[in-house]
Amino acid sequence: MNFLVTILGSGAATPKLGRYCSAQVVNMDGFKMLVDCGESTQNQIRHYRQKMQSFGTIFISHLHGDHIFGLPGLLSTMHLGGRKEPVDIFSPKGLKEALTPLFELSGSDFDFEIKYHEIENDEPVAKEIFHNNHCTVKAFPLYHSIPCFGFIFEEYVPYFQLKQGVAQQYNMSSADIRMVKQGRDYTTEEGIVIPNNELVLPKREPIRYAYCCDTSYNDSLVDIVRGVDLLCVEGTFDKSMEQRALETGHCTTRQAAQLARNAQCGNLLLTHFSARYRDLQPLYDDALEVFPRTLMAEDGLVLDLDVLAKYHRNA
Amino acid sequence: MNFLVTILGSGAATPKLGRYCSAQVVNMDGFKMLVDCGESTQNQIRHYRQKMQSFGTIFISHLHGDHIFGLPGLLSTMHLGGRKEPVDIFSPKGLKEALTPLFELSGSDFDFEIKYHEIENDEPVAKEIFHNNHCTVKAFPLYHSIPCFGFIFEEYVPYFQLKQGVAQQYNMSSADIRMVKQGRDYTTEEGIVIPNNELVLPKREPIRYAYCCDTSYNDSLVDIVRGVDLLCVEGTFDKSMEQRALETGHCTTRQAAQLARNAQCGNLLLTHFSARYRDLQPLYDDALEVFPRTLMAEDGLVLDLDVLAKYHRNA
Repeated sequence: MNFLVTILGSGAATPKLGRYCSAQVVNMDGFKMLVDCGESTQNQIRHYRQKMQSFGTIFISHLHGDHIFGLPGLLSTMHLGGRKEPVDIFSPKGLKEALTPLFELSGSDFDFEIKYHEIENDEPVAKEIFHNNHCTVKAFPLYHSIPCFGFIFEEYVPYFQLKQGVAQQYNMSSADIRMVKQGRDYTTEEGIVIPNNELVLPKREPIRYAYCCDTSYNDSLVDIVRGVDLLCVEGTFDKSMEQRALETGHCTTRQAAQLARNAQCGNLLLTHFSARYRDLQPLYDDALEVFPRTLMAEDGLVLDLDVLAKYHRNA
Repeated sequence: MNFLVTILGSGAATPKLGRYCSAQVVNMDGFKMLVDCGESTQNQIRHYRQKMQSFGTIFISHLHGDHIFGLPGLLSTMHLGGRKEPVDIFSPKGLKEALTPLFELSGSDFDFEIKYHEIENDEPVAKEIFHNNHCTVKAFPLYHSIPCFGFIFEEYVPYFQLKQGVAQQYNMSSADIRMVKQGRDYTTEEGIVIPNNELVLPKREPIRYAYCCDTSYNDSLVDIVRGVDLLCVEGTFDKSMEQRALETGHCTTRQAAQLARNAQCGNLLLTHFSARYRDLQPLYDDALEVFPRTLMAEDGLVLDLDVLAKYHRNA
């Protein structure tokens, strides 16, 4: 399994040079998902050598401009690139109504279908909104000024691990091994059926990535993101601006670190930094005081969750 | 008078790295106007060290995405920057209907008014749509797949030029000279009234810049842009693609040069190059064969029309 998160934009409402509006790529073994799509996302996709047409599955946290204004351009470019396959977009209610007039009045007539999936979930639990043979994606409500959802990306672990020595013990072929790893029982040459659970270890814990942007700190999030390998939380403000963070539905980096600590997450990734800060070191320091395994997002940063998980799981 | 054109985006429908979608700044003695606003225009404004809030007057040629998808982000950033002054946007019918749902559903509530001015002009003549004490802007219909307008930016020439020697002859003060340059008659110390036309030369010809993007070649454009100092025409395709240009409402660079030649323009600026071309030299060569005073737009290019006009007017 190859589980990569690539930051395309780590800025907040106003982009800066070198720090664009929110967008990320979650890559599960080659299956790529786009998470949020601020203005210039298509340029960032190009800049970081991703393929425009690979983003047939898009998750939008909420409808603020800095998370969606890149969608019209990206979808247009997909069309001009000859796309025929549908694009699935998961978002809070209203995205279709927001985009359709723009496409109609600009004469955009796409050769592919945009499938809008409205996320509805009022309860403070993560509910599945998508799955395929690579991953499951769950959504949960965040605490922002308009309806907003966080996401948990959980890899699908296809294979059990063989107990040490059983392949030799039963003289299994590689085809046999594959079947057993998939969960089948094994029948010996003598016709004896060995139940699968005697041959394999439990599947390893799936690697999980949680994305919480934009949101205020709220205790209800702790149980939802508990134990994820990487928790991405917005860190719009420094700790002196906690009141302003609360009023505007945002977090300080210290609050983000408190969430990571309280939820015993493997690692914390901070993003969505206000353009007011020229130097992010104080925001980083605020978080480090609370939670040491903290990373600061930069446009272009790639995180390998296999590696991250290996280190903190063994820590 | 200081008359500058700055290219923010010189690409066509699909942006490339280093060649973004259509946007230009026309700066008339410090009064700045934005012409078209493709995605990432706000980033290009920042990159080329323009001031976001200086663009209170915006002209949109047509509603295709590569000319308007930067508006939501630019207007949002103006709002977040504390703007209170209205923004005037001149465009074909439909822009308000395209943008309003996006702003409403994304919860954008601006502290300034967007004044939408719909351009209506079916006749092949340039009609005034805007003027102030810096310039006059006229719009004329282009030949594209949806309603589309070209613009002529004409400087306002405030002063007559004094005839040589008259200031000394009548012993004028600097205040007198200013009045006469503004068109007043002059009364001598002896009480004799000298009519203004005996004191001044005609005002010099105003410098004019015409913007034609997107459009097919059409003979009706020749009279409209006749004699402008700088003619900007889209050059989406090379000359081998004339049929495709016609079908899609675009020009080859050769056709653009033919327009400049037939209209006896001072200089030609080509822009809006299809992303299919890695090397634009052949497109440039196509134009140069027909019209030598041709320039190729690059993102970040600044043209000083005073200088351009001086050279070709004296040529």
